[in-house]
Parts: sequence; structure tokens; C-alpha cells
Amino acid sequence: MTDFTEDELVATLRRLLSEEAPGVRVGPGDDAAVVDVGGQTAVLTADMLVEGVHFDRSTIAPRDLGYKAIVVNVCDVAAMGGSPRYGLVSLGLPSDVDAAWVVELYGGVRDAAAEYALAVVGGDTSRADRVVVAVAMTGEVGKGAAVTRAGARPGDRIVVTGSLGAAAGGLRLSRAPAGDVGSALTSGWGRDLLAAQYRPAARVGEGQTLAQRGVTAMIDVSDGLALDLSRLCLESGVAAVIRLADLPVAPALQELKGILAADPLDLALTGGEDYELLATIPAVAVGQARGQLRERFGTPLTEIGEIREGEGLVAADEAGAERPLEPKGWDHFAD
Amino acid sequence: MTDFTEDELVATLRRLLSEEAPGVRVGPGDDAAVVDVGGQTAVLTADMLVEGVHFDRSTIAPRDLGYKAIVVNVCDVAAMGGSPRYGLVSLGLPSDVDAAWVVELYGGVRDAAAEYALAVVGGDTSRADRVVVAVAMTGEVGKGAAVTRAGARPGDRIVVTGSLGAAAGGLRLSRAPAGDVGSALTSGWGRDLLAAQYRPAARVGEGQTLAQRGVTAMIDVSDGLALDLSRLCLESGVAAVIRLADLPVAPALQELKGILAADPLDLALTGGEDYELLATIPAVAVGQARGQLRERFGTPLTEIGEIREGEGLVAADEAGAERPLEPKGWDHFAD
Repeated sequence: MTDFTEDELVATLRRLLSEEAPGVRVGPGDDAAVVDVGGQTAVLTADMLVEGVHFDRSTIAPRDLGYKAIVVNVCDVAAMGGSPRYGLVSLGLPSDVDAAWVVELYGGVRDAAAEYALAVVGGDTSRADRVVVAVAMTGEVGKGAAVTRAGARPGDRIVVTGSLGAAAGGLRLSRAPAGDVGSALTSGWGRDLLAAQYRPAARVGEGQTLAQRGVTAMIDVSDGLALDLSRLCLESGVAAVIRLADLPVAPALQELKGILAADPLDLALTGGEDYELLATIPAVAVGQARGQLRERFGTPLTEIGEIREGEGLVAADEAGAERPLEPKGWDHFAD
Repeated sequence: MTDFTEDELVATLRRLLSEEAPGVRVGPGDDAAVVDVGGQTAVLTADMLVEGVHFDRSTIAPRDLGYKAIVVNVCDVAAMGGSPRYGLVSLGLPSDVDAAWVVELYGGVRDAAAEYALAVVGGDTSRADRVVVAVAMTGEVGKGAAVTRAGARPGDRIVVTGSLGAAAGGLRLSRAPAGDVGSALTSGWGRDLLAAQYRPAARVGEGQTLAQRGVTAMIDVSDGLALDLSRLCLESGVAAVIRLADLPVAPALQELKGILAADPLDLALTGGEDYELLATIPAVAVGQARGQLRERFGTPLTEIGEIREGEGLVAADEAGAERPLEPKGWDHFAD
């Protein structure tokens, strides 16, 4: 892609498609669309995984690939405060893929469908040069209950579920030369990182609870905290400050740092594929939201910063010194 | 794809995914799925177009590609008797595609969305080696009103909308050496064939009317009459006889035959991409259905054969002599 970035492309497409249309409550540009189907409200989203871009067939098991293709879509539904119901799985398959590989991939699709109580009801198959897994998902959300990226207000606190950076750490670990990695792949912390990369979790219940607790905006962290927060701020027309010392950096990244040149903070800020929920919420509501997530799901909720007037991201160190934070992260069109 | 055909793959996937699930009225294997969303019934379908398999980037305008990617999904919704509402468009884009090309593609998406009164509400974008256009569509259908492939009964008449073979003829014409084609590309009949290939029409109103007129099974003719009829028969557990002399062969194919070695009857039977509706209907209901389609939409409905007990397809010539008809057609995995 020589002449545009992913965000530029998405912005162009939104302009092209942004006409008001009957039944459309949230159109292109959020984690998922929100539409009326009959008298009900549905959440619609699609995500495409392409061999050589999102995964490497030589290092991902087909079962993990199928699982992950479903989960990344579930995460988008969760980020609206919805619950997933139905999936469509379209596959592009090269000639060197055999039936057993495809059956394994569908095994992972089934695993994820069972895990998140959704039904895979169709899709399409085609020949292709490289493996393409395109999933579309339909979810449900209560009328008026969907949370977009656009509602953050100055003074809101920024919160994130779980921990950050582990999936990117798992990717580094799986791609490192065997000689550098030693026994890390089978260690407890190594397995944690690999699981974050190959068997990510979607925060469905957490998303619904946060929606009920009054979050003002929400997004799933798929392309890195900095980039996804910058998207939320752009949609809301606000700025944000992140306190670096408060980021819930995945503990296993300290171990990884011992064997690979991988900065834990950098992975947490820009690594991507965490699929945690990043939300903004009035200060008075943080405590109860945190308590409910811990109690119901055992999931930590960490306050990492605050929304301000203006635009752009700022990182604050422990002493309170601030510097601009580049909204960099995973761009599917970057080299 | 060395070790399975497309239908074998689809059959395998259906077995893997066929568990009963709450809210699923029609699962994998039909033109589209039919599911409950809240108290309403939705139709869900997805179709993926891959460069080098479904289209050749050097011969299709991006605007036509975008248009067609939407229409093929609308056809699947129409084949259930539903009406399209929302589309998701996911694009895989190689590095030699520029922004202007993508904007043109979305122009075609918008054209089709306007034509069929649906809203494109999202999707995904990714880098890829070749262009991939994966569309998912949500439609609406009345409760209990969806028409599957599985209801055909012995004695039912087989009917088809419009004419057959023109899209395949248009593909042949567009790929023929310029010296063979002469002025055909700009002739009236040549333009008809090219329009059928690059700007296909979906029979949405016709599908709803046919559903109301009591068709027992319905499918859209995407991979050729013979193959799609064989699929309908397989799902219904019946056999079929086709009267070759009654097939509504596209008239322009007679002109094409004059300049290329292309048998009109063969194109009509196996050419694919017609996107006409093929349905089975009790004999007593044929006349009224035909009258309503002509009156409301100006669309011909032709009776081309009859459903029988048993399995397989038979072709009858004008003298009534019968021979087995191979269910051959477009297979995305065939060489």
C-alpha cells in the first residue's frame, strides 16, 4: 500500500459510506456497527486474517488460527457492550492446504464458538494464493446500550482490563531463534505469553458490565494501547494523558526481557493483539466497576490515566513529567 | 486444493458445525442462514471474491468489482425470500493498488447499496498478496417465510427467472482475443453479455413474490443451472428432469456463437454467475407466479422441468429422450 495508511483508508471509506441510512445507529468506523433488525438491535462486525500479514502458517497451528479468527470478532462485539450470537466464516485456501488442516481450523472455530456460546451458521470457501480467514459476526445489544468510541469527556478516567503486552511478547518468543529462547517456550511465563498470542480471550461479560457501569467510550486494544487510545480520543474529540507507571504490563514480559531485547513498556504501549477493553468512565464510577469485574470475572481493571480537553496523547512518568506519545502501533499497510 | 472439491469441503464443514444451536432456524449449507435476533428473524450470508479465482484485475473495473461483490450477497438473501439490509465489506489489498482504485471499488459498493436499498456499515481492511473482497450481509425475512433448498417434492415444477448463460458468455467475450471479437464488444448483444457478467442483477422482489406464491425450494444460480439444481435436489432428497428445449437461453448467445466456439446450451447449463432464481413450485401455482413476476417486475419466469422421486439429474430433448445430466459447473477448487 504505497499511498495511504490503514487509518487514512478507513477514514476515506467512512466518508464514502457515511450517509445516514434507515436503521443504522452506529455506522462504519467503530469496533462494530449497531443496526436495527426488525424491532431489535444487532451488532455487526467483520475481521479478516491474512497469511503473511496477521499470521505465519509455519508457526500457528490451524486450530489456534480458527480459534483466534472467531475471538477477534467476539472482542469487537464485546467492545460495544454486546454479546456474540452468530458467526460466518469465509476461507480462502491455497492448493497446498489439505482437508485435515481445514478440519483442524474448524476445530478451533468450534472451540471458540463453544467458549463464547455462539453458532457458526455459514460462510464461503474459495481457492486463494494464501490462506485468508474472513469472519463476520452478529451480536445482540440492548436498545441504546451500545458503547461507541465517541463519548469520552474531559475528566473521565481511562481504564483497561487485564494486562498489556503479553500477546506481542508471545509473538516475539515464537519467532525468536531456538538458541536464544532455550527452555522459555515450556516455562510457565513462556506458556502465558504464547497463550496470549495464540488463544486470546475476549472480555464479553466485562464489556457488558462496564457498559452497565456507565463507561462513556470503549474500544478493544487490538493494535496497541497507544494507537487504539488515539482512535478513541479522535472519535471523542478529546486528549488523553497516560501514567506509564500505572500500566498493567504483563508480568511475564520481565522474564522475556531477560532473554530477548524486548522492552516490556514498549510492548504494552504498542504491541497489539491484547484484545483487552480500554474504556473511559467518570471518576466516581471507577471503584464499583473495578469491584464488579473482579468479583464476577476475576478480571483486574486498572486506571491508567485521564481524559483532557484538546487532542493527542501524552505520557506521564512517575515524577509527573509529560512527553507527547506517538499513536504508533500495528498498521496493516505499514512496511 | 488437492484432496477435496468445494462441495466436499462444504459438506465436511456442515458436519463439523451442524449442532443444533439456540436461535438457528437454517444453519450452514443453504444460500444463507436464518437466525433469530431478539424476536426477529434475520438472514445472514457471506461471499468472498478472490483475484485470480473470481475475477481478473486487468479486465474488471474496480467499480464493477465493488458492485458485483455486493450483488452476489444480495442474491443469496433473495434466494431465501428475504430483503437485504446491511453489508460489511472486508478488503485485502496488495501494495500495487492505489487509493483511487479503492475509492472506485467503493463507488461500485455504493452503487449497489443504493440499488438494493441496503447500508454498508463496516468491514475490515488488510494488506494481502492479491485483492480479496469478502462481503457479509444481513437481511430480513418474515417469521417462517424463508425458503430453503430442502422442500422440493416429486411433481413440483422447476422454474427459473430471467435467462441463462449470458454472464458466462460475457466472460468469454471479455477474455477473447481482440481480433476474434471485432465490434462485438460495442454491439447491443455484446453489451448485454458484458453487463450480465459485470453488473449482474439480484432478483430481490422476485424472490419475495415467489416465496409468497408457495415455492417449495429455492436457490440462486451462481455456479451453473446443472450444479445448483443438483444441490437443491440433494438437499430435498429428490431427482429432477430438465427439458433442454425449454431453457431460457440468453438470446445474445446465438450471436456469440457466430464469432466464438461457445455452445449456448452448454453456457446456459453450466456457465454460472447468472444469479437468477431457480425454484420448485406446485404445478397449480406456476401460472399465478409467472403472471405476478411479469406484472410487478417485468421478469420472465420459465418452467423448465419437473421434480421426480429418486436422485440425480436427467436432461430430456425435444423428442422426450432422456440422458443423465452431469452436475458440473463452477468449482472454485477445480483446476
